[in-house]
Amino acid sequence: MNQAAIDDLLGFLRFPSVSTQHDHAGDMRACAEWLRGRCEKAGLSARMEETGGCPCVVAETPKDSAKRTVLIYGHYDVQPPEPLEEWTTPPFEPDIRDGKIFARGATDNKGQILAHLLGVEQTLAEKGNLPVNVIFLIEGEEEIGSPNLGALTSKLKQELACDVIVISDTGMVVHGHPTLTFSLRGITSLEIRVSGPSHDLHSGVFGGAVANPATVVARLIASLHDEKGHVAVEGFYDDVRPMFDWEVQASEALPVREEDIRELSGVPELTGESGYSAIDRIGARPTAEVNGIGGGYQGEGTKTVLPKEAFAKLTFRLVPHQDPEEIQNLVMDHLKKHCPPGVHLEIIRGHHGEPYYTDPNSLYGHAARQALSRTFGKETALLREGGSIPILGTFQQILGAEVLLLALASPDCRAHSPNENFPLENFEAGIRLNQAVLEEIGNLPR
Amino acid sequence: MNQAAIDDLLGFLRFPSVSTQHDHAGDMRACAEWLRGRCEKAGLSARMEETGGCPCVVAETPKDSAKRTVLIYGHYDVQPPEPLEEWTTPPFEPDIRDGKIFARGATDNKGQILAHLLGVEQTLAEKGNLPVNVIFLIEGEEEIGSPNLGALTSKLKQELACDVIVISDTGMVVHGHPTLTFSLRGITSLEIRVSGPSHDLHSGVFGGAVANPATVVARLIASLHDEKGHVAVEGFYDDVRPMFDWEVQASEALPVREEDIRELSGVPELTGESGYSAIDRIGARPTAEVNGIGGGYQGEGTKTVLPKEAFAKLTFRLVPHQDPEEIQNLVMDHLKKHCPPGVHLEIIRGHHGEPYYTDPNSLYGHAARQALSRTFGKETALLREGGSIPILGTFQQILGAEVLLLALASPDCRAHSPNENFPLENFEAGIRLNQAVLEEIGNLPR
Repeated sequence: MNQAAIDDLLGFLRFPSVSTQHDHAGDMRACAEWLRGRCEKAGLSARMEETGGCPCVVAETPKDSAKRTVLIYGHYDVQPPEPLEEWTTPPFEPDIRDGKIFARGATDNKGQILAHLLGVEQTLAEKGNLPVNVIFLIEGEEEIGSPNLGALTSKLKQELACDVIVISDTGMVVHGHPTLTFSLRGITSLEIRVSGPSHDLHSGVFGGAVANPATVVARLIASLHDEKGHVAVEGFYDDVRPMFDWEVQASEALPVREEDIRELSGVPELTGESGYSAIDRIGARPTAEVNGIGGGYQGEGTKTVLPKEAFAKLTFRLVPHQDPEEIQNLVMDHLKKHCPPGVHLEIIRGHHGEPYYTDPNSLYGHAARQALSRTFGKETALLREGGSIPILGTFQQILGAEVLLLALASPDCRAHSPNENFPLENFEAGIRLNQAVLEEIGNLPR
Repeated sequence: MNQAAIDDLLGFLRFPSVSTQHDHAGDMRACAEWLRGRCEKAGLSARMEETGGCPCVVAETPKDSAKRTVLIYGHYDVQPPEPLEEWTTPPFEPDIRDGKIFARGATDNKGQILAHLLGVEQTLAEKGNLPVNVIFLIEGEEEIGSPNLGALTSKLKQELACDVIVISDTGMVVHGHPTLTFSLRGITSLEIRVSGPSHDLHSGVFGGAVANPATVVARLIASLHDEKGHVAVEGFYDDVRPMFDWEVQASEALPVREEDIRELSGVPELTGESGYSAIDRIGARPTAEVNGIGGGYQGEGTKTVLPKEAFAKLTFRLVPHQDPEEIQNLVMDHLKKHCPPGVHLEIIRGHHGEPYYTDPNSLYGHAARQALSRTFGKETALLREGGSIPILGTFQQILGAEVLLLALASPDCRAHSPNENFPLENFEAGIRLNQAVLEEIGNLPR
C-alpha cells in the first residue's frame, strides 16, 4: 500500500495519547491538533471542540441537503501501555514486522479511524466530492468511558444530525472476514463489601463463633449461578427474548470454530451456561462475572487471620430488553436475601451501559453488508458481540440514528494488551471499506 | 508491686526482638544476651544455645534427683509492631497507663515468661532453693513457627528431661479469673490457586464462554460448609468425639458470656455451626476458615477483566483425634471433586499442627488448678481454647511430658495487635503463680 498512508499512521501512533494518565495531557492536545490538521489536509473543515476534558476533533464536508449524512465516530486516545516490559518494541515507537504495525493504539482506534479519514481523502481527490455528507467526530476520552461526549453531542445536536453512524471499533470474527456487528451487550456493575469483626481476628481464638467475611463473599458469589451455569438471580431472564431463527442461522454460519475461541482465551476447555454454543453464550446470553475479589492476607505463606472484611467487584453483561438499572436492583435484592447474619453487607452501585441492537436487514444494514462483502470479497458475517460500547446508547438517544459497526480489527490484534498491532492489509482494506460504505449509502433509494 | 521487677520488664520490652524481620537479627541476639544475664542474676546456670536461627536461652537449677523437674517454656521474640500509627505510644518504648504496661511483647510473651523467672528468683532468695528442679527453655522463634526448636529439643533431650512442662502463653477466660487451658485446637493449612485463561480476558469479549477463576474459587469455598455451618467435607467429623459430660459442665460453668466474645470480636452478631454454644464452637469444634482471598482487579472503580487466576488461603482448626494430614487429604479430595471443568486447580499443602489435649483431672492438672485458685482467689476455670501451639505436640513427642497451660494474659491484652498491654496485676500474680505451682508440684506424692 502507499507509503504516505503508512507514514501518516506512524506519525499518529507516535503520540502517547493516554487519556487516563494526567501527565499525558499535553500529548493528548498535541495529538488532537495533529489530527485536526490531517483532517484539514484531507479536504474537510476541521476544528477542536473543548469538552472540559480532552478535546474532540470535529471535521466535516459542506452540507448538501440532497445527500444523506453519515457521522463517523472514533477516538484518538489509547489505553495505558503498561506492562512495558512485555512489549517487543516500545509502544509509542511503531514498528512494522510481518506485515503488521505494532504500537499502542494501532488497532484501537488510530489505525481504524485514520483508514476512514484516508478513504474520504482519496474519494475527494479522485472525484472532487463524496456521495454523502460526512461528519467525523473523534474524541479523546473513549478509554475512560466518554465522560464528556454525551454533553458535547447534546450541545452539537443540530450540527451532528445524521442519517446513520459508522464506527470501526469492533472485531472481525476471523482474520480477513467481513463482519457486521449488529448487537452488543449492555452492562451493569456493582461492588459488594462484607464486613464483620472490628479488626482482623485470630482465626483460632475466634474461628467458629463469628461469620468470616471472605466466606460470606464467596457464598454470595456462588449463589449467583446454578449448577448449570444459569444466572440464579430471580427475574434475571424475564426480559430476555429467545434468539430469532435467522439469528441462530447467522450464528451457526459464522466462520469461527469453538477451538478458535479456546485458543484465543488460553483456557483448557470452554464452559458456561448449558444449552448454548460458546459464540451465543458470548453474544446472545447475559452473564454474571467477578472482575475482582479480595480480602484478608494475600502475601506469601500463611497468616491465620479471620479477615475483618472482604469485597468483590461484579459486572453483569446484558442482552437486548434487559434494563441495566432493573437488573442491578434484582441483583441487590438477591444479595441482600442471601447474605447470612453476623456481617454488614454494603453494596456500591456501579455504572450502566445499555445493550445495543440493530437490524442487519434494515436499509442501512444492507448497505453495510454490501460494502463489507465488496471490500473483503466474501459474504459478510453477522455477529452478536459480547462487549459493550455504552456511548452507542447515547448516540441513539440524542441523534436518533442507526449505528453500523464495521469491523476492521483482527481477533489477535491485542487491543488493550502489550504488542497491540494492526495488519497493513486491514489498514488498506479500511480505506476501501470507507469508500465502499459511503458509496453504498449514497446509492440507497431516498 | 516492686519497682525493680517493673524496671526489669521495661528493659526487656525495649529490645525490638522481631524474629520475622531480618534487620532485627542484632536486636534478637542482644535481647537473648540480656535474658541470659538476667537468668544468671536470678541464681540459675544460664547459657545461649545456637539453633541456626535466633538463639535459645537455657537456664537451670542444679539437678536434685530427689525432686521433680519442671520445664518452663517461653519466648523472647515478638510479633512485628506494624501498623505503627495505631499505637498510642511507640511499641518499643514501654509506657505505663491505667495500671498496664503498653509495649509489643508486654503480654506475648515477655511479661509472662519474666514473671516466672522473677518467681523463681524470689523463692531462691527467700528459701535458698526450689521445691523442684527448674529448666527454663526460652526461644526466639515462636512467632515464626519455632522452625529450630524441635531439633534443639531432640539434641538436648537428656538435659531437658522433665516431669511436667509449664507454659504461660494462653489467656484467662475473663480478666483476673484463674484459667487452666486443657485443650488447644490443631491446624492444617493449604492454598488453592485456580487458573484458566492465559491472560486477563475482556469480560465482554469472552465472558460466558470460559470459566471465571474467581467464581470457581468462590464456589469451592462455598462448598466447604452446608447451610447449618457444618463443614461439608466428607469424613471431616469422623474422628471427632462428642464432648464428655464434665467438659460440657466445665464449659457451661465458664464465667464468660457470649456477649463478651461478641464485644471482643466487634461483630454485629455471633454465628456459626448450629447446635453448639459460641465458646464450644471455638474450643471444642473444628472449623474451616478463609484467611485470605484474591484475584482480578482490586483497585478503585471498575475494570472489566475476567481474571486469569484467583486464590484462597485456607486453614482448618482441628480438635483431638483429628489427624491434620488426613484432614488435609480429605479437603484436597473434596476440592478436586468440586472443581468444575475449564480451569486448572493447584493445591499447595501448608503446615500442620497437632491438636493438644490434657486431662485437667490428672495429678499435675490438679496441682495446676490448686496453684491457680490460690493465686487468684477463685475456683479455676477449665477451658478448651481455639488457638494452636504446634510446639506442644513436639514436646509431648520428644519429652513425653504433660503440659500445663497457666493463663496470665487478659482477654483484652491485644497480643499481635497495636497497643498490646500487660496489666501490672497480672505481672505480680504471675510471680506468685510461679511460686505456687512449683510448690504444688513439689508437694505431690511420688
